[in-house]
Amino acid sequence: MKVTLERNHLLKSLGHVHRVVERRNTYPILANVLFKASDDKVELRATDLDIEVTESVPAMVSTPGTTTVPAHTLYEIVRKLADGAEVKLETDGGEQMVLTSGRSRFNLQCLSPDSFPDLKSGSFTHEFAVPAPAMRELIERTQFAISNEETRYYLNGIYLHTIEVSTGETVLRAVATDGHRMARADTDAPSGSAGMTGIIVPKKTVSEVQKLLDGAEGDVAVEVSDTKIRFSLGSVVLLSKLIEGTFPDYERVTPKNNDKSMRVDRATFATAVDRVSTIASERGGKAVKLSATDGQLELSVTNPDHGTASEELAVEFETDGFEIGFNARYLLDIVGQIRSENAIFTFNDAGSPTLVREDGDAKAQYVLMPMRV
Amino acid sequence: MKVTLERNHLLKSLGHVHRVVERRNTYPILANVLFKASDDKVELRATDLDIEVTESVPAMVSTPGTTTVPAHTLYEIVRKLADGAEVKLETDGGEQMVLTSGRSRFNLQCLSPDSFPDLKSGSFTHEFAVPAPAMRELIERTQFAISNEETRYYLNGIYLHTIEVSTGETVLRAVATDGHRMARADTDAPSGSAGMTGIIVPKKTVSEVQKLLDGAEGDVAVEVSDTKIRFSLGSVVLLSKLIEGTFPDYERVTPKNNDKSMRVDRATFATAVDRVSTIASERGGKAVKLSATDGQLELSVTNPDHGTASEELAVEFETDGFEIGFNARYLLDIVGQIRSENAIFTFNDAGSPTLVREDGDAKAQYVLMPMRV
Repeated sequence: MKVTLERNHLLKSLGHVHRVVERRNTYPILANVLFKASDDKVELRATDLDIEVTESVPAMVSTPGTTTVPAHTLYEIVRKLADGAEVKLETDGGEQMVLTSGRSRFNLQCLSPDSFPDLKSGSFTHEFAVPAPAMRELIERTQFAISNEETRYYLNGIYLHTIEVSTGETVLRAVATDGHRMARADTDAPSGSAGMTGIIVPKKTVSEVQKLLDGAEGDVAVEVSDTKIRFSLGSVVLLSKLIEGTFPDYERVTPKNNDKSMRVDRATFATAVDRVSTIASERGGKAVKLSATDGQLELSVTNPDHGTASEELAVEFETDGFEIGFNARYLLDIVGQIRSENAIFTFNDAGSPTLVREDGDAKAQYVLMPMRV
Repeated sequence: MKVTLERNHLLKSLGHVHRVVERRNTYPILANVLFKASDDKVELRATDLDIEVTESVPAMVSTPGTTTVPAHTLYEIVRKLADGAEVKLETDGGEQMVLTSGRSRFNLQCLSPDSFPDLKSGSFTHEFAVPAPAMRELIERTQFAISNEETRYYLNGIYLHTIEVSTGETVLRAVATDGHRMARADTDAPSGSAGMTGIIVPKKTVSEVQKLLDGAEGDVAVEVSDTKIRFSLGSVVLLSKLIEGTFPDYERVTPKNNDKSMRVDRATFATAVDRVSTIASERGGKAVKLSATDGQLELSVTNPDHGTASEELAVEFETDGFEIGFNARYLLDIVGQIRSENAIFTFNDAGSPTLVREDGDAKAQYVLMPMRV
């Protein structure tokens, strides 16, 4: 292999593919990035056996060929090369790749590309295109609620599926929950997504896709089968295994009879919750109590070790004397997702899940379990 | 105690004093900040038994008094209050301090001020004033070389003393070393500092003083005894114990006969060292080799696990065929201190300490031990 690339192109693509490479690997080949040089491009590929990221970089290919080199080391080297520099990569079929750029010269240990794993995609049952901003929105709205508990592996991702909503429209919906809170976001179902079985996209995949979507404007092509999902955006292709398991029936835990509605200024509420929670203890679950009386909402925290905190703010709320407690962190996470000036809370009672959504026609909805306070 | 303060004033002073408070304390009182309200001010004080920071905040004092409250919690609360808000603090002599600001109200657990430790200053033998920028420079030039090895406790700080230099002038000099590298910086000896015995200012004190000096322009008043040092800057006073011990005779390890001089562009050199060190292993001590031939300096790194790296740059160097190895991190730390366009290295041989200094009349000088490569 003998190729010449532009440093900035190479850096951008290495930036995309090297992130998937774990820092510690059982198999040495997994620490490497695969180079395949042919025609006028070099294809880079990296994998952790669950996710595979592939990207093509424009290159002058003098001698086609393939090799693999340590991904993180190469990324660091290329990052430190001068902006816009020319980079030459050369192997003689032996155990080393020589990188030269300006007066810098690196010899990197290669591993044979023959043992580089291939995450076979299989055939896909559904293919559709989603505008990148809409896909980003689905992720950002729900990602925070993904569970980290490995025992409940089927909650370690975002549940993606199509569903007909009450208006008769079909939407593409993302749902995530950790059992304490649930986040749900909808976007118009793209053509080709109808009838798609629900799939669970793993947390790491979600996070990688989010980074790829950062600032992207075009469409992202999505292909889905029972076991895999593939995202294609420009020259980057991310193929990932899905979580095998059954996502819980989230509709069943979404409250239907919450009749007490409260409208509160989002920013004022968030600042106040943040302030009173300063004295809440981790041990006490960071509990904050909401008490509504006469259009006033009192937020209060009691921590036997530190003292008490309280704060009052004006709300629109009909029910007098209502009290409920929440984990301050979870409450702030959800309120942080609200984009409208006001947040709408609907309660049933102090022991039942509370619904939170934006003012107006919201494409997202949040469910929060209360805490005893 | 009953006082009213402006939130920004209180935040600034709490910011200064709370940093000295450790996160975990054997004695609960050490987690607290002392409030002393009298006349038109509140004095705040915090200590870790080695350092004591005191600052006065202008306040409307309705009822004078003293109390102590948890420093970090109070800092967090005040930080989260609105910019420019009015803050009321009130104790009834009982176990709680009530903080109110706008519609926020906090009750904080107090501890009796009677048990608050007093780091008695004793009497000082020397008093002098140093321009804040000059003191900052002494610290910044040397801080990086302070040893973290607790067994060599006498190296865990900056050695500050006055000394007559070859020009006949007396300078105030700061020296720090960890046995691998040594940094030394001078400033004009201020009036009152002459005859001062060398003292070792602990690392944490150095770091706190550096933060206090950030952006400061006036003079910092320094008072010194055999066991304590006191820095006063505006309304902040920092009193610290000194490290009891003997600082090594740094003059003895400063090379005198280094006759091989090399002049190199600082930025080019630093970039190149950083680049080749990418493939250096921690295990191998991050060794980088410098080889000079015909006005060219080759930097190279060999790592049996990863490969090799080399880079050439132009230097002014008379001695042909000279080779020496250094720890890349230490080399970068020192070159990062050079403010002139070129750095001057003077070598003796590959096994002896190397001197590094700025081009021109330098107030600072660095010594670096070589590594075998």
